[in-house]
Amino acid sequence: MLAKEYVDMLSQKSVIREISAYGTERAKEIGYENVFDYSLGNPSVPVPEEFKNKIIEILQTQDPMTVHGYSPSLGISSVRQAVADSLNRRFHMNYKMEHIFMTSAAASAIAHALRAVTIPGDELLVFAPYFSEYVPYVNKTGTRLRVVPADTQGFQINFQALDDMMNEKVTAVLVNTPNNPSGCVYSEETLQKLSDYLKDKEQKYSHPIYLISDEPYREIVFAGVKAPYVAKYYKNTLTCYSFSKSVSLPGERIGYLAVAPECEGADILVDMCGQISRGIGHNCPSSLIQLALPSVLDITSDLSVYEANKNILYKELTNMGFECVEPGGTFYMFPKSLEKDAKAFCNKALKYDLLLVPGDGFECCGHFRMAYCIPTEKVERSLEAFEKLVKEY
Amino acid sequence: MLAKEYVDMLSQKSVIREISAYGTERAKEIGYENVFDYSLGNPSVPVPEEFKNKIIEILQTQDPMTVHGYSPSLGISSVRQAVADSLNRRFHMNYKMEHIFMTSAAASAIAHALRAVTIPGDELLVFAPYFSEYVPYVNKTGTRLRVVPADTQGFQINFQALDDMMNEKVTAVLVNTPNNPSGCVYSEETLQKLSDYLKDKEQKYSHPIYLISDEPYREIVFAGVKAPYVAKYYKNTLTCYSFSKSVSLPGERIGYLAVAPECEGADILVDMCGQISRGIGHNCPSSLIQLALPSVLDITSDLSVYEANKNILYKELTNMGFECVEPGGTFYMFPKSLEKDAKAFCNKALKYDLLLVPGDGFECCGHFRMAYCIPTEKVERSLEAFEKLVKEY
Repeated sequence: MLAKEYVDMLSQKSVIREISAYGTERAKEIGYENVFDYSLGNPSVPVPEEFKNKIIEILQTQDPMTVHGYSPSLGISSVRQAVADSLNRRFHMNYKMEHIFMTSAAASAIAHALRAVTIPGDELLVFAPYFSEYVPYVNKTGTRLRVVPADTQGFQINFQALDDMMNEKVTAVLVNTPNNPSGCVYSEETLQKLSDYLKDKEQKYSHPIYLISDEPYREIVFAGVKAPYVAKYYKNTLTCYSFSKSVSLPGERIGYLAVAPECEGADILVDMCGQISRGIGHNCPSSLIQLALPSVLDITSDLSVYEANKNILYKELTNMGFECVEPGGTFYMFPKSLEKDAKAFCNKALKYDLLLVPGDGFECCGHFRMAYCIPTEKVERSLEAFEKLVKEY
Repeated sequence: MLAKEYVDMLSQKSVIREISAYGTERAKEIGYENVFDYSLGNPSVPVPEEFKNKIIEILQTQDPMTVHGYSPSLGISSVRQAVADSLNRRFHMNYKMEHIFMTSAAASAIAHALRAVTIPGDELLVFAPYFSEYVPYVNKTGTRLRVVPADTQGFQINFQALDDMMNEKVTAVLVNTPNNPSGCVYSEETLQKLSDYLKDKEQKYSHPIYLISDEPYREIVFAGVKAPYVAKYYKNTLTCYSFSKSVSLPGERIGYLAVAPECEGADILVDMCGQISRGIGHNCPSSLIQLALPSVLDITSDLSVYEANKNILYKELTNMGFECVEPGGTFYMFPKSLEKDAKAFCNKALKYDLLLVPGDGFECCGHFRMAYCIPTEKVERSLEAFEKLVKEY
């Protein structure tokens, strides 16, 4: 009696995994340095030294019973307070410890947020292009994920499309800015307009519409770009954060859910998350990793390589004739493919050892994603391959 | 639109939490050293030094990009292999890496096991007395948890009661040996009889009945007691393990699910767990903690204090007239209360600053649980309080 639903998932192919597997095989033939692998969004710069030093200090000076003891299910109090303090300092918010729930990175934060503010039968809206893992995240809650078509001009929000899809069953909207895969950052204007729109609908439908804001790239923002803090614009915001990208700790599975202080239910939402955990087998991130976290709350890894790579790629690819909205942050860009069928385009790119991901999986066809979290010298060497690819068109 | 189900859970009182909170308040009045707190199952001995040394060595010698990089969703391969090797060495099994799924301790292992082998509408049997968190673990899967009444004579299995409750909807049976709260260890005879019984029912109902074996106390076994390895007796066994108790790492949230090599579906069950994770927001335990784990796979903390405490308490309490099945392991014992109503009994115990947990929450009334993971000198000082309590009866 194996659960059929999960058996069936095993036979679904992941395009990114296939491309990545192809790259691994190809690397055996020509060397990994010659495979221009733009397929995976893994940070390419190390965590700040402060983190390592802090862990060693904790292990050498603190009681192991405390360090490795049970964390309260909502997270270690001092760490929750430090997270609140850091957010307040940097974004002029007024979070208290009680608004912070420590999670196993953003996946877990979103899993809890979804279960806290939606019930089976509700609808959740997400804007294309979007991170495709949202589909299994949402599907298992019984809530219906509906995708608002992209604003392909600027990868802000297509408000007309949003309005077409809005109805009273919508109890949550999921945003991701700075965005995977577009690299675009929602402007102040976009967020204000979204806030006004949602407030209006809340009043019309007489129920809150929660904004679940997935922000793992919040600190990866390029020169001249302002990344507004989403929860400042809309009170019913649940902020989902991960330390995977900004401080390069993806393997440590650490992040948090921050409930905006004025949010409806702010007094009980974090406690509800503690109850949700009991049913899904999540308790807490590692206590040692939690205790070391305050060492990197206000700093980031050296993120300059991502901006350097973006500058080269944006300039050179647009020169070659690619149409692309300039990324404001992250380590992704999302140009138009040179033929309508992005899968065919990405297949052709493989001839030149360029590993690109078709936009179809992000529900935005005719585009392709590049994850440029790779060494800059490799980015530079890849340009010749792009030139050859362009010549095919 | 807060999810009512979780809001409602907030008003449910946890007896253990209430007792513990009482203890904290009382400690402010008379000092914690004078509160005989037998309420919580927290290890009281530190992790072996090897673990600390290994973490520091990893941080000082390995590339932080590797150490803190994404772990594969099934766990880091070398760690899975090391877990398989350790199980094979110690229990003469033949696990391969492919049978091991790294989890955030036993809670997560059970969450995955349940979703892999049961579907909504199925029934799962568990034997009283049992760890009460199984209720939310199972409830959220849509599977129905049914409790087989206890064998209060020896806290083995009440096979007559099992047979009364067995039907073809049962697709999984959950066991916990060494047991929380009884401290008892299933004998070879019990496991063989259970295996024969379940095999017979599998044939009768023409479907597998999986044995989910929750074994966080497997290494905490006292002199003269043999703790048979459950999966040796029954091929359709999913072993759920946690490093919380035997090496005192509860805060690190690390454990595994081991699929017995001959289990039906053994070739895909671990991959299914990888899919299950996507829907419940669990990805993996911390990569750093995983990498350090091989340092403690074949060793334990110094567990002698638990046996010393058991010896004192078992001898003295039975001398005072308590009826108790002698624990074979863990750091729990589960004597009969001196009046039928264990809650009333535990309330009376508070007068003498004895924090005991009534058996009702473990669905075994008329008993109380003592978690004797406390300093031996405190155990000794508590005996006078027990004597006073006995005099009330």
